Amino acid sequence: MDFNTLLNSITPLHKEAINDARAHNDSLLKPLGSLGRLEDIAIKMAGITGRRYNKVEKRCIIVMAADNGICDEGVAGTPQGMTLWHTKNIAEGVSGVGVLAKYANADLKVVDVGIKGQVESTLVIPRKIKNGTENFAKGPAMTRDQAIEAIMVGFDIVSMAKAEGYEILGTGEMGIGNTSTTGACVMALTGLNADESIGKGGGLTNEGLIHKKEVITAAIKLNSPDSKDPIDVLSKIGGLDIAGLVGCFLGAAYHRLPIVIDGAISALAALIAFRLNPYCLDYMFASHRSKEPSFIWIMRELQMDPIVDLDMRLGEGTGCPLVFPIIGSACTMLSDMHTFAQAQLDQTYRIDIRED
Amino acid sequence: MDFNTLLNSITPLHKEAINDARAHNDSLLKPLGSLGRLEDIAIKMAGITGRRYNKVEKRCIIVMAADNGICDEGVAGTPQGMTLWHTKNIAEGVSGVGVLAKYANADLKVVDVGIKGQVESTLVIPRKIKNGTENFAKGPAMTRDQAIEAIMVGFDIVSMAKAEGYEILGTGEMGIGNTSTTGACVMALTGLNADESIGKGGGLTNEGLIHKKEVITAAIKLNSPDSKDPIDVLSKIGGLDIAGLVGCFLGAAYHRLPIVIDGAISALAALIAFRLNPYCLDYMFASHRSKEPSFIWIMRELQMDPIVDLDMRLGEGTGCPLVFPIIGSACTMLSDMHTFAQAQLDQTYRIDIRED
Repeated sequence: MDFNTLLNSITPLHKEAINDARAHNDSLLKPLGSLGRLEDIAIKMAGITGRRYNKVEKRCIIVMAADNGICDEGVAGTPQGMTLWHTKNIAEGVSGVGVLAKYANADLKVVDVGIKGQVESTLVIPRKIKNGTENFAKGPAMTRDQAIEAIMVGFDIVSMAKAEGYEILGTGEMGIGNTSTTGACVMALTGLNADESIGKGGGLTNEGLIHKKEVITAAIKLNSPDSKDPIDVLSKIGGLDIAGLVGCFLGAAYHRLPIVIDGAISALAALIAFRLNPYCLDYMFASHRSKEPSFIWIMRELQMDPIVDLDMRLGEGTGCPLVFPIIGSACTMLSDMHTFAQAQLDQTYRIDIRED
Repeated sequence: MDFNTLLNSITPLHKEAINDARAHNDSLLKPLGSLGRLEDIAIKMAGITGRRYNKVEKRCIIVMAADNGICDEGVAGTPQGMTLWHTKNIAEGVSGVGVLAKYANADLKVVDVGIKGQVESTLVIPRKIKNGTENFAKGPAMTRDQAIEAIMVGFDIVSMAKAEGYEILGTGEMGIGNTSTTGACVMALTGLNADESIGKGGGLTNEGLIHKKEVITAAIKLNSPDSKDPIDVLSKIGGLDIAGLVGCFLGAAYHRLPIVIDGAISALAALIAFRLNPYCLDYMFASHRSKEPSFIWIMRELQMDPIVDLDMRLGEGTGCPLVFPIIGSACTMLSDMHTFAQAQLDQTYRIDIRED
């Protein structure tokens, strides 16, 4: 599979399955529309798989880990070496996403797509493109080819997950400096300014935040990425973790698997996938409302509304395991609730509250 | 147990357990505050049980079913007989709450606390106070003693659940006309007018809604309930299902069990319990953001923020099974995540993002 073939092989939702699921949903023993977004989720799932009834019990969260050269500018509140160190914790399941994933019966696939240094864990999938990106305050973070290569890593991991029978995917990341790359890409892709799209990430001071905004604004000017070309933006001022996640979103759409967005970084990857092929959006669910400023803007463009609101900002993919059971609940609602016919109740008792 | 003893036996959260859980939470391998409300939930759970680590795996949703005489005034979009008929469906597990509860490994306890007519199901717990309330457009819905009796039914059911080892409770209801009783009680308790607190419930027309508001406004005037006396309000213009749920909230606080609010009706019961003894609030979690107008006002007084936002409006307790796994995730986060010490990382790397 090459990148252009992948882009051209993504198709929209199954219309017939959607119509069939919608009709069945309307026959269930409840006022029409009364289960709100659970109904929308169940119907979308039918469109994704082409089947009326679905399960999302075999679950996997893909965590893309990589380093960012922009850390040389002092834009992160945490030492860069933390990426290498904490990726091992994530893979061993003792960090936030590991614990929450285990509770939700979800597996992890942790991928080294560009960590600086040698990862000392056989639990991390070795797909390093390079030892961290270049400092994009000085020039492009990576080449266009490297960005595409990292995207195809994401595609490969999703293909592996598909072959292993996973029914739903989540997305996560680890990469010190990736709120800088994310904020920069959001600015370039949407035209927002630094105040609108740059947050503190993990633990900057107020002075640090001002510095971060100045560095990123200048770096964008230096690289002048083409806002109409998402790969140009991604390679010049993005990161390998983001690129890997873009590949996950493209891969999920290609393989017709539902995929869940976590926070701002994974949302940016979702936005880039959407810009590359708008049908990608049909396969995505948003999990939690992140507090990073750029997240809100991305949700607006994608016209998505996260399912839970928990003031979380850890990253790693921690939002995904929290909504897997809700997506599963929606599927179960559609397949297991009795219909008016099964309950031997006349359809004239059916109430429509969708417009109320 | 009599009602006054119950009211006087409810105590606040365990402060020491809260401090201990908070200290442990702050030692976990994540920026301080980065798991947002999951952290708050886990700490609150420690305060409820008095233990640092908790589980909410044995789950029960209590559904209180009763009829409302106010239906004689044509305020409901559904025939009153639906309460009797649908309570059986709920108990058999084929309705919305049954299907979602089963998916969340939650059991149901469905209680006839005042259904009009004979329930033909051994799955419904028979605790009928009376054959539906009186029409409160003509006089009080029930006597004060009957309201207290129904509250004690709720307390008894929670006591039973506690004895059976349940670790978390949900609340649900079935009762045609109960958006009218709820709207009326909210008006009387908060001073809101009909436009602010009365919604269409299940399937009224626009003309029907105007009529509903007129009927309720006039009925409140006729009964002149004492806004400072929640039992007076509940007995004159409330319902037996609401009273039963008030007993559930009081009982959960008495037995130190976490209890989850569903939609507007269960939220009103929570508000009444809170007005009777403010410590009750310490044991409550809000599940989903209901679309009934009175719900928003109640959340404001209780200073609660629902966990999920799914545009749901079915009732029955359907919000509860959706958040049980999130409360469970919070507990697991606190008990299973590694600490800085376990990860052999110096505490100086700990980042505080709580004020960002």
